[in-house]
Amino acid sequence: MSARSSPELTVLTVNNTFYQAMQSLDLGQMEAVWWHDDWVRCLHPGWDLLLGWDAVRESWEMIFSSTAKMNVTISRPLVHVLSDAAWVSCVEHATSAVESDFITTLVEATNIFVRRNSQWRMVHHHTTPLTGRVPAATSRTVQ
Amino acid sequence: MSARSSPELTVLTVNNTFYQAMQSLDLGQMEAVWWHDDWVRCLHPGWDLLLGWDAVRESWEMIFSSTAKMNVTISRPLVHVLSDAAWVSCVEHATSAVESDFITTLVEATNIFVRRNSQWRMVHHHTTPLTGRVPAATSRTVQ
Repeated sequence: MSARSSPELTVLTVNNTFYQAMQSLDLGQMEAVWWHDDWVRCLHPGWDLLLGWDAVRESWEMIFSSTAKMNVTISRPLVHVLSDAAWVSCVEHATSAVESDFITTLVEATNIFVRRNSQWRMVHHHTTPLTGRVPAATSRTVQ
Repeated sequence: MSARSSPELTVLTVNNTFYQAMQSLDLGQMEAVWWHDDWVRCLHPGWDLLLGWDAVRESWEMIFSSTAKMNVTISRPLVHVLSDAAWVSCVEHATSAVESDFITTLVEATNIFVRRNSQWRMVHHHTTPLTGRVPAATSRTVQ
């Protein structure tokens, strides 16, 4: 990002990097996008809330090792930045190959990011499967 | 709250006030617990994401007018404060009387709060129904 990028655009870029890590099943890239604190939290679809980086890292390792291939795109990203904290809402469109099945899920996500030393990283990932529903679009993408 | 209260305890108190407003079906109290900005967001169970205070207020008015009685308790609150932003994870246990039925739901929530002029208020409410699942407890309540 150039020095002229707004914090909002920088956060949306980090949000995209998170989904690139997910799609690539790349644990190293996923590790690089999170702060490794004992208070970070993650709610995967169908899971209980995970607390702390060790549990969150282990969950990604488990998901990536049981997934043959994953395609992830996002739509309707909304971002709000307040000083060194930021939160993004977006809709994930994920298709996974798990064992012999393809699973397509539509998920509403809230992702929270924290900035330290000019670096934005994720500290919170909360998902809600939108079973059988196509969420309404909005016309606003950056707040 | 006394002047000696930590920001974490203050945020948890505002989080409790939010659930008291929900349980009381009190639109005035609900209005008082949110900032009325056009970028606040709310995902009720089974709804699409709502953007902006007008839509969020209207949703609470609709929910309260269609609900005869609601009982809400929360468990496992986890809070993190970063300057003037804070986020809480908790499990909502809600029993509602809607028309002739009682509906009990267990919901994982992420609530984001912003402080202005020493006042903490909600700006984001994201829920995930935990259908048929009892979430694991954790031993930590304040981060």
